[in-house]
Amino acid sequence: MKHSIKKITIIGLGLIGGSIGLALKRAGNTAQLIGVARSQKTLDIALERNLVERVEIDIVKSVEDADLVILATPLSSFKKIILEVSHNLKPGCIVTDTGSSKLKVIEELSNVIPMGVSFIPGHPIAGTELSGPEAGFAELFDDRWCVLTPTEDTNKDALNSIRLFWEELGSKVEIMNPEHHDRVLAITSHIPHLIAYNIVGTANDLANVTNKEVVKYSAGGFRDFTRIAASDPKMWRDIFLYNDEAVLEMLSFFSKDLMKLKKAIEEKDSDLLQTFFENTREVRKNIIDAGQEVSDIDFGRLKK
Amino acid sequence: MKHSIKKITIIGLGLIGGSIGLALKRAGNTAQLIGVARSQKTLDIALERNLVERVEIDIVKSVEDADLVILATPLSSFKKIILEVSHNLKPGCIVTDTGSSKLKVIEELSNVIPMGVSFIPGHPIAGTELSGPEAGFAELFDDRWCVLTPTEDTNKDALNSIRLFWEELGSKVEIMNPEHHDRVLAITSHIPHLIAYNIVGTANDLANVTNKEVVKYSAGGFRDFTRIAASDPKMWRDIFLYNDEAVLEMLSFFSKDLMKLKKAIEEKDSDLLQTFFENTREVRKNIIDAGQEVSDIDFGRLKK
Repeated sequence: MKHSIKKITIIGLGLIGGSIGLALKRAGNTAQLIGVARSQKTLDIALERNLVERVEIDIVKSVEDADLVILATPLSSFKKIILEVSHNLKPGCIVTDTGSSKLKVIEELSNVIPMGVSFIPGHPIAGTELSGPEAGFAELFDDRWCVLTPTEDTNKDALNSIRLFWEELGSKVEIMNPEHHDRVLAITSHIPHLIAYNIVGTANDLANVTNKEVVKYSAGGFRDFTRIAASDPKMWRDIFLYNDEAVLEMLSFFSKDLMKLKKAIEEKDSDLLQTFFENTREVRKNIIDAGQEVSDIDFGRLKK
Repeated sequence: MKHSIKKITIIGLGLIGGSIGLALKRAGNTAQLIGVARSQKTLDIALERNLVERVEIDIVKSVEDADLVILATPLSSFKKIILEVSHNLKPGCIVTDTGSSKLKVIEELSNVIPMGVSFIPGHPIAGTELSGPEAGFAELFDDRWCVLTPTEDTNKDALNSIRLFWEELGSKVEIMNPEHHDRVLAITSHIPHLIAYNIVGTANDLANVTNKEVVKYSAGGFRDFTRIAASDPKMWRDIFLYNDEAVLEMLSFFSKDLMKLKKAIEEKDSDLLQTFFENTREVRKNIIDAGQEVSDIDFGRLKK
C-alpha cells in the first residue's frame, strides 16, 4: 500500500474525510495528503486541525498526479465530481468512495470513470452525530467494518490496495455484493435513521404535548433517538434517495411488524407482547459480544 | 419527611425498588427499610447488596406498621397487591407507586385503597436497560424528573411527603394531570420503546439479511435501538396494556408521519427530506442544554 500510493486526494473534509486524514497520519502513512472542499472556511479549519497536509479549493487541480482519490461528500455529488475531474485523473489512479448506498453509485459512476482508472466502491460503517471539518478524529474507524462492494469488472489489485488502506486506518474489511450491502445497510442503518428522524419530527409537531415537555422528560427513551436524528441532513437526504428500493422494502417489513404490535395492544394480547419483548433482549448482548457496542449500562451515560 | 416516615416497605426489588433503597441510604434516611419480593433468590441478593435493611417474603406481614408502601412491580400487579395487603395497612399510611402509566392505575386502585390510607400516584422517569435485584444503584434518580399525578381527592400532606421523598432521592418533582402524563410519556418513552422493540424484531425476522450481519454492522445506527429494546419485558408489556389509549393515539401520529417520509422517498422529494432532517437536529441540543442528556459525542462511546 504505502509504496504504491504516494499522493492521496480527499474530496470532502467532513466527519469521514477529516477522520481519514487524521487516521492516515496516526498510522504513519507518508503519502502526500491533499484535501478539497468548496468553502474556504472548511479549508482553513482543515489546515488548522491538520486534517491534511495541503488544501485545495480547485477540485480539478487537486486530483493531478493523485494515486488515490477518495470521495467523502454526499452521494449525489459523486457523478458531478467525477465528470469534472475525469480528464485530470492519471492512468492507474484509484477512485474510491465512502457512500452509504452502493448499487446506484456503481451504476452512475461506471459510465464516467475514465479508462485506466479503477473505481472501488466502499463504505466505512462508522460515524457520529456530528459533521463538518471539526468532527473528524483519528480513531473513528477503529474496529469498525468497512464494506467494499466490487463488481465483476473491478480491478483486483486496486481492490486489494483499498482493503489495505482501510486496514491501515483501523478498520476491518468485508467484501460484499453491492445489492446485498444495500439491503443490510437499509435495516442496520437507514431504517433506524428514518424512524429516529420520524419520531423526533412527530414529537416536534404534537398539539397536546409541548416541545418543552418532550425535552424535559426525554430520559424515558426519546433522547436515545435524537442522537442519530442529529446526523447530517444532506448526507441522509441522499442516502434515502439512493437506497430507495431497499429502504422501502425494509420499511414495509417494519410497518407490517408495527401493525402487529398495534393489534396486540388493541386486543390486549399480553402474551404476544411479552414474548416479542423477550426475544429482542438477546440482540444487544450479541452486539456487545461482537465488539460493536460498549458493555457499559446506558451507553456509559450513568456513572455507577 | 424524615420525622413522620419511620418505616418504609418497598414491594419489588428490581432496578427501581433497589435504587430507591440505595438512594435512601445514601441520603442518610434513618427509616426502617423493608424489601419484599416473591423469590428467595431476589431477597438473598437484596440483602447481599444492602438494598434494604430487612427482607420479607410474606407481603402481608411486610406492610405492618409501614408509614410508606412503595409499589415497584409491573403495573398489572398493583391491584392484586393492594387487595392482598389492604387489611394490614395502618391508618395514615401512604401508598405510592412507580408505574409508567397513571390514569388506569388511579382508576384501578381508587376502589381498593382502604379508608384512611392515602394513595399518591408517582412515576420516576429514570431507568436503564437492566432489571432485577442486581440492577439498582443509588444515583439512578439524580437530576431526573419524578412526576406525581394527584387527583382532586388526593391528600395534600401525603402528596407533599412524597414530593420531599423523591427530592431526598435526588429527583426533581413535577405535579401533572394523570391524563396529560400518559400522553407525554406515550411520546417520550412508550412509542420510542415500541418502535425500538419493533425494529429489533423486524431485523431478527428478515429472510435476506442474516442476524449475524445485523449484529456485525449494527454500528450504523441499529445498535442504539437495542438498548431500550433490552428493557424488562414484563414491565413493558404492562405499560402498553395500561397506557393503550395514549400509545395508540401517538402511534397513529407516528405512522402518519412515517407515511409522509415514505412518500417523499418514493417521489424523490429531496427538499422535503432535507428540511425534515434539518428540523430534527436542534432537538438534541435542547435536551443536552436541559441537563437530560450527556453532551459527549456518540453518548461518550467514542473516546476522542
